[in-house]
Amino acid sequence: MAHRKLLTGKEVALHNSRESCWIIVHGNVYDVTDFLDEHPGGSKIILKYAGKDATKEYEPIHPPDAITTNLKPEKHLGPVDPGTVEKIEEVITAEERARQARIAARPHLSEILNLHDFEAIARTVLPEKAWAYYSSAADDEITIRENHSAFHRVWFRPRILRDVTKVDWSTTILGHKSSMPLYISATALGKLGHPDGELTLTRAAAKHGVIQMIPTLASCSFDEMVDAAAPGQVQFLQLYVNKDRGVTKRIVQHAEKRGIKGLFITVDAPQLGRREKDMRQKFEAEDPSEVKQAGQGGVDRSQGAARAISSFIDPGLNWSDMSFFKSITNMPLILKGVQCWEDALEAYDMGLAGVVLSNHGGRQLEFARSGIEVLVEVVDKLKEKRGLNFPNEKFQLFVDGGVRRATDVIKAIALGATAVGLGRPFIYAFSSHGQEGVERALQILHDEFEMNMRLLGARNIKEIVPEMVDASNIHLHTVSVPNDNLYNNNYEHLQGARIREIGSKL
Amino acid sequence: MAHRKLLTGKEVALHNSRESCWIIVHGNVYDVTDFLDEHPGGSKIILKYAGKDATKEYEPIHPPDAITTNLKPEKHLGPVDPGTVEKIEEVITAEERARQARIAARPHLSEILNLHDFEAIARTVLPEKAWAYYSSAADDEITIRENHSAFHRVWFRPRILRDVTKVDWSTTILGHKSSMPLYISATALGKLGHPDGELTLTRAAAKHGVIQMIPTLASCSFDEMVDAAAPGQVQFLQLYVNKDRGVTKRIVQHAEKRGIKGLFITVDAPQLGRREKDMRQKFEAEDPSEVKQAGQGGVDRSQGAARAISSFIDPGLNWSDMSFFKSITNMPLILKGVQCWEDALEAYDMGLAGVVLSNHGGRQLEFARSGIEVLVEVVDKLKEKRGLNFPNEKFQLFVDGGVRRATDVIKAIALGATAVGLGRPFIYAFSSHGQEGVERALQILHDEFEMNMRLLGARNIKEIVPEMVDASNIHLHTVSVPNDNLYNNNYEHLQGARIREIGSKL
Amino acid sequence: MAHRKLLTGKEVALHNSRESCWIIVHGNVYDVTDFLDEHPGGSKIILKYAGKDATKEYEPIHPPDAITTNLKPEKHLGPVDPGTVEKIEEVITAEERARQARIAARPHLSEILNLHDFEAIARTVLPEKAWAYYSSAADDEITIRENHSAFHRVWFRPRILRDVTKVDWSTTILGHKSSMPLYISATALGKLGHPDGELTLTRAAAKHGVIQMIPTLASCSFDEMVDAAAPGQVQFLQLYVNKDRGVTKRIVQHAEKRGIKGLFITVDAPQLGRREKDMRQKFEAEDPSEVKQAGQGGVDRSQGAARAISSFIDPGLNWSDMSFFKSITNMPLILKGVQCWEDALEAYDMGLAGVVLSNHGGRQLEFARSGIEVLVEVVDKLKEKRGLNFPNEKFQLFVDGGVRRATDVIKAIALGATAVGLGRPFIYAFSSHGQEGVERALQILHDEFEMNMRLLGARNIKEIVPEMVDASNIHLHTVSVPNDNLYNNNYEHLQGARIREIGSKL
Amino acid sequence: MAHRKLLTGKEVALHNSRESCWIIVHGNVYDVTDFLDEHPGGSKIILKYAGKDATKEYEPIHPPDAITTNLKPEKHLGPVDPGTVEKIEEVITAEERARQARIAARPHLSEILNLHDFEAIARTVLPEKAWAYYSSAADDEITIRENHSAFHRVWFRPRILRDVTKVDWSTTILGHKSSMPLYISATALGKLGHPDGELTLTRAAAKHGVIQMIPTLASCSFDEMVDAAAPGQVQFLQLYVNKDRGVTKRIVQHAEKRGIKGLFITVDAPQLGRREKDMRQKFEAEDPSEVKQAGQGGVDRSQGAARAISSFIDPGLNWSDMSFFKSITNMPLILKGVQCWEDALEAYDMGLAGVVLSNHGGRQLEFARSGIEVLVEVVDKLKEKRGLNFPNEKFQLFVDGGVRRATDVIKAIALGATAVGLGRPFIYAFSSHGQEGVERALQILHDEFEMNMRLLGARNIKEIVPEMVDASNIHLHTVSVPNDNLYNNNYEHLQGARIREIGSKL
Repeated sequence: MAHRKLLTGKEVALHNSRESCWIIVHGNVYDVTDFLDEHPGGSKIILKYAGKDATKEYEPIHPPDAITTNLKPEKHLGPVDPGTVEKIEEVITAEERARQARIAARPHLSEILNLHDFEAIARTVLPEKAWAYYSSAADDEITIRENHSAFHRVWFRPRILRDVTKVDWSTTILGHKSSMPLYISATALGKLGHPDGELTLTRAAAKHGVIQMIPTLASCSFDEMVDAAAPGQVQFLQLYVNKDRGVTKRIVQHAEKRGIKGLFITVDAPQLGRREKDMRQKFEAEDPSEVKQAGQGGVDRSQGAARAISSFIDPGLNWSDMSFFKSITNMPLILKGVQCWEDALEAYDMGLAGVVLSNHGGRQLEFARSGIEVLVEVVDKLKEKRGLNFPNEKFQLFVDGGVRRATDVIKAIALGATAVGLGRPFIYAFSSHGQEGVERALQILHDEFEMNMRLLGARNIKEIVPEMVDASNIHLHTVSVPNDNLYNNNYEHLQGARIREIGSKL
Repeated sequence: MAHRKLLTGKEVALHNSRESCWIIVHGNVYDVTDFLDEHPGGSKIILKYAGKDATKEYEPIHPPDAITTNLKPEKHLGPVDPGTVEKIEEVITAEERARQARIAARPHLSEILNLHDFEAIARTVLPEKAWAYYSSAADDEITIRENHSAFHRVWFRPRILRDVTKVDWSTTILGHKSSMPLYISATALGKLGHPDGELTLTRAAAKHGVIQMIPTLASCSFDEMVDAAAPGQVQFLQLYVNKDRGVTKRIVQHAEKRGIKGLFITVDAPQLGRREKDMRQKFEAEDPSEVKQAGQGGVDRSQGAARAISSFIDPGLNWSDMSFFKSITNMPLILKGVQCWEDALEAYDMGLAGVVLSNHGGRQLEFARSGIEVLVEVVDKLKEKRGLNFPNEKFQLFVDGGVRRATDVIKAIALGATAVGLGRPFIYAFSSHGQEGVERALQILHDEFEMNMRLLGARNIKEIVPEMVDASNIHLHTVSVPNDNLYNNNYEHLQGARIREIGSKL
Repeated sequence: MAHRKLLTGKEVALHNSRESCWIIVHGNVYDVTDFLDEHPGGSKIILKYAGKDATKEYEPIHPPDAITTNLKPEKHLGPVDPGTVEKIEEVITAEERARQARIAARPHLSEILNLHDFEAIARTVLPEKAWAYYSSAADDEITIRENHSAFHRVWFRPRILRDVTKVDWSTTILGHKSSMPLYISATALGKLGHPDGELTLTRAAAKHGVIQMIPTLASCSFDEMVDAAAPGQVQFLQLYVNKDRGVTKRIVQHAEKRGIKGLFITVDAPQLGRREKDMRQKFEAEDPSEVKQAGQGGVDRSQGAARAISSFIDPGLNWSDMSFFKSITNMPLILKGVQCWEDALEAYDMGLAGVVLSNHGGRQLEFARSGIEVLVEVVDKLKEKRGLNFPNEKFQLFVDGGVRRATDVIKAIALGATAVGLGRPFIYAFSSHGQEGVERALQILHDEFEMNMRLLGARNIKEIVPEMVDASNIHLHTVSVPNDNLYNNNYEHLQGARIREIGSKL
Repeated sequence: MAHRKLLTGKEVALHNSRESCWIIVHGNVYDVTDFLDEHPGGSKIILKYAGKDATKEYEPIHPPDAITTNLKPEKHLGPVDPGTVEKIEEVITAEERARQARIAARPHLSEILNLHDFEAIARTVLPEKAWAYYSSAADDEITIRENHSAFHRVWFRPRILRDVTKVDWSTTILGHKSSMPLYISATALGKLGHPDGELTLTRAAAKHGVIQMIPTLASCSFDEMVDAAAPGQVQFLQLYVNKDRGVTKRIVQHAEKRGIKGLFITVDAPQLGRREKDMRQKFEAEDPSEVKQAGQGGVDRSQGAARAISSFIDPGLNWSDMSFFKSITNMPLILKGVQCWEDALEAYDMGLAGVVLSNHGGRQLEFARSGIEVLVEVVDKLKEKRGLNFPNEKFQLFVDGGVRRATDVIKAIALGATAVGLGRPFIYAFSSHGQEGVERALQILHDEFEMNMRLLGARNIKEIVPEMVDASNIHLHTVSVPNDNLYNNNYEHLQGARIREIGSKL
């Protein structure tokens, strides 16, 4: 493609129809005519930019290499002469103007007191489809909420009268120092929430001495995130395994060369989950009369952003692939998404470095148990079967899903985890306040750790022991007998003493 | 009745009073004068059509042979000359016009993402009494909801790193191939929801390779449903046993001759349940001053559609009748409505082909346990008492009630069921979008099966094993201690960070 | 008092002040000057009738002999000449007019489908203070609701394929035939709900062949209720034991003479409960500035109707009194209000005829367990300690509290009760529709019994066996961990498919 | 400072800026220029009073010696000549006027029926920041509510037929007579709720013969509270241990000299909790642009009132300090805030007089278990390990948190506690109605004890035995499986019988 004359905006503009559709992304021209019906996000949104520069629309919702990966090389038409491209005048909708006003009216960072606050703000200031993508989960979204409420079934047994003047909650994760027993877990499409995307996480992690797990499906490229790291900053890599193992090999070896310290292979997502909040967004971007019925041939364009970006993932990945990974890298291998003791045991017996007990933030199999619940079972059984004690340097257990407070983290540590992953909370932090939001989130966790370790009577991570929690209710999944509506309607709620009428008028 | 001269519309029109009341149904004239006080739906609605053609009103809410069965032969006055019957001008009420507008505004089929969606639409577009009949259940409707929530007490233990490129969730039911481990269960009065009634189910079942269980109380006739079947399409028959065993024998032997592959004898309905939503509808169709008090002689016309169509059912049906059924048919016999292990064991010992663990969709005995709960007990006890393992070819267990997702079905399969019946979800599908709705519902289940089998790590039905679920909470029926309203009223809910005033104004 | 000249209305009218206050009740004049400060209902309401006829106000809220019992004989001034008493013109308030309109707009009796319905109507048509008295319960009213919800922790294990053509739910209670395994329990102050008061119960009981338990604190007199009974109609007597055993002896022996068949001695009310709904009513009837502070001498007039009528009850009643009762009557003795197995055992060992497991409808000790829960414990322990099986002719167990459906009754029978008492449901029935309401309530229960016995597979009371229920959760008192409001506020509920805008506009 | 000439108001008024800031408190002048940035409540509020008399603002929210303790002696500039100080004209805001109107419209004391009522009124009449300080608790405020609801998992097993004419619920606490088995627990900053602050408690305690525990962080001084005590009135002291043990020694020995009968050393608060309701109040009192980000040096002024007043507390306090306390006082030593049996055992083995099982009213470690739950464990284990029976004279167990009714107290007594502490309920009582409110609260408890002991069948404290409660559910922490919103939205709630349209119009 070298030596080719630069294309001009005018030339591109001629290809502005379903019959011939070119678009410009990051200064390069692509012929997407044949791709229109394949586009997971539907043809309508592409046709809107037919013959034009689509970069602004494209960028936040695609990994950087999405277009080059999905389009055959002959459809890469080469660079466009930037001066010749007409600027698109952005029409700002009333809805968008209102959103901008809300962004301007965000509370000051110092008014953010906990991680919930970021989520509340993010929900208000994110574009609807970004919120839908981030917040959505599988089926009826029962699992995502169970992840959080499972922590509420674990209660503390704090110890008193220990000198807690100095408390230290730093730890080591896969041999690397971390200022807290947690890490920033991998999440996709960061630019939906903030123009700097995942880089906000990289930079904030550096400031606070925590480890970032780089996602395969980031909006920023892998190298951007590694380049943004501070000297000595530790990063892990989350990996979706490609059907083409050659691609995977390149990614892994490149990562190792760039200094990545651990490889977290996602094993709970042979197919990405149906997330209906995300899927419902599609119908607004699409002319309903154009949407083909699912299952009747063609690409089903109604499956939401998650499906749209994940078709390369190999559902054939299996235990025998572990030797392949061992053959291509010396990074410690950790399975992300283990959900029962049998598979944790298998991972241990295979000599892997650890497992993340996770149900993918409730986004994959509905009614998969929470990581904190699985942790109890894994610790029990691996002690029984292999005599292991946890936390364990040789085989480390991680948990993610539903964490909002340092107390959640401390419960997992007490039960045997080495560290806990947080994903959405940091997404919401940068969606709300950018990198500073992530830093504030880490600072809040810092403050909570300091206080709660004192109150628990644990001066360091080792002193957080199983006896400090009562997890005897962890396996209890109760559903109340349905309401007796007729009885309840008849019951007249008690009314307490009240201010006389005048009071309420004022 | 041969050779009789055709009656004319004019003649019929003379009998338009309580004293002499004739009506026309499907081109035949009936003298219903003596039947007025017996009509389970009340006399008022009949009198409205006295001397006129009542077909349009009659059709959706009666099985095809209701009038011929309930009226003595001498009251069948023979055919009317169609040209002589005055057309009734239908007055369309404002309410009905609004309903038609809602029908026109239904979302496109591709926007339906799950089975709940059909129910939401059906609730909106069905006539009130149809919705009441379909959705109603026993007493305080606690059991119907428990049926659904019982599934929420069962959680998955998924396996990872299995090659799930190909997953196959087809199975065999009573020896017949089914594309999924589910069947369309028998439900009554399909024309309340759609003019094509149960035929929508027959046709959609053919397209998707699933089995339809034909109901005794269908709006379409048995033969219509069999005629509508595709070549080789498998159908079962659900049977309410008539007090007159001769009638039952005729039905069963006719069914066998027509190729029905299994006879599901309903055993949980010696008397049809009181369903109050349905019953309350009656009072609108009736002049209150005319309604006699229940229990004071005459027919109690306030018992709703369910009672109205079921007076023929024999409450005397018992175990000794099983030899009768064996003597009249070679179809496999399955009891529908078994609710404890003792009766499942008895069915097995009697050599029957299986049982459906069901409480009739919560429409019969309030506080009967859900099928999924009973399944756990039955599998345990039949293993203990007879050494049986499930799923079992020789004695098949089925479950119905409360199913909305493929995950629900998979839970039942893991616990030992051969297949699961779905009733209301398909009713709501055709009430919402006709046959295409049913097809879309089956397609959605197809998609959910594919994804969930992958996520569970089961490549085929046999790989869905008991270890993949935690059902330890299945017998837990909790009711929260009633609210302390005074305390709760005093508690001030936490408020998180918020956008400043301006934001919310926009 | 014989030969005294009749007092005239004019004479009485002179005593119309706090200094000298006479009132007329049922044609007799009483000097209540000294009683003003003692009146549990406050002085204000008496002073309103000073010098006038107070019968209409007095009647519904007092047992017939309240005034003669509480006032010294010398204050009974004798009869008034009726012709000389000025008629009081009743002023009908707007609130009362609205209530009368609601009464006129009650649904027809045939539209009442269950016992809840009567309560819904009663709540609407009762005067506020009557509703408060009837519906109120102890403290935070948790126990009253637990009584009902405890039944929801018991689920059925129905049997199939039994010939249930004929089902019979009649039984015998203390040797007396009852058409159903239930009785009308004693409740106070019936005239608050209906001018005929408890007589509506007596008459309806006769029609339906059930037994009425006559209350000590009825609005109608004991003899009125016995006189109203049909020939052969069985009645029991509920007894509050008077500090003066002579009074009690007279009542008991009079009752036995009049044919009462069982004596139910209330043992859960040495002091009547504080019922705050009832108590709050007091402040409207009272000039707040007049209300003395509780506990500072004088009578505390703020304790509601319950306290007002019960000061005679003996808190000294104890086990040694049982020999007294045996010495004065041959009626079977039953303790009403037993709440643990230890006391049930004691009653058995003392040779009493039975016990009612009851917490007084949740009106006495808050957090007393429900009768149905205590039943499970009593049956277990009396079998273990004394080898008793239940139901048992010699020592009968009764349960009351929270019953609304025949299924509730059947659960108690299955667990060993002889019969179940219903109180409030019948009060609400007559408050809503008088005697006919009570009859309809009984008819509804009749219908429910018929259906549910068929559905359960029990042809008679004896066939309702313990194996037919799962009561394994009966002792489970759960309270959900308090809501995480910040998390829940952030969670965006799933929205299903919806009709497009136009639909909802119509 | 003797002989110094009195400062004048004019002189002080010159120092009215950030550069030089003097204020007057209680007639003394302080130079707070250097303290501005250290003030936990922020500089803005001080600057408002720069050069003026700040007493009125200062008083309710600081312990009396706050300013003298926190300011170096050289900044104590000595007394001001009162006649020379300009009176500040108070501007009354509309909000404050509305609050005053609500205060005027409070219900009469006799209309207060339970402790909840005081809370309802207090919430309405307290200034917002006072309510926030009193009602706030840790993190998501789950623990504070669990404290109350834990009592709901304990149910009574009352005994009948005991002569309960006389019931006596008085007891002895650490050898001292108490009219009830409860005491007024230590709570901070009483003047936020009432100008007389904690003195209202002292005086009401005297009237009702109960013991007050004097708080370290009271708004009134220790001596004021002791001076206010009636002759012979028993008081305990709650102690936050100062980093400077000399200060602590002085406090303790002074207390003993003044006749304090027990020393309750707080051990659950090495650092005071983050209470977000309280913290959110800060942002209103502060110019947001001035608030420095937490954790970036300087004092974090956003931590709420709790932190503001507690920086002196020693997080180094530990078991070895117990010998120090034994060496400086003969008062019985009790640890307040024990939360597991291990620490209770340690306290016993160290020879202390008892422990308060408490999580500090839910204000410290979120997910710490309730006192009533810990009680069950402590009683079990101390019996097992040391053969102790409870209640026990030698080693007394106390419980606090969540108590609102006498039944709550009785449950704790039955389970082995000597007495129960109530904090917030009394705060709300004086916030609502001053000292009379506290008296009324005690009277209500008195009434509830009398009734409930009768109903329970316990004539004195000793007769309240473990068999009288069922605490088998105490360790059960359930969280319902999250709602299935789509299913629940589709479910149409049953509607009962209803008054016809006209009724509801009136």
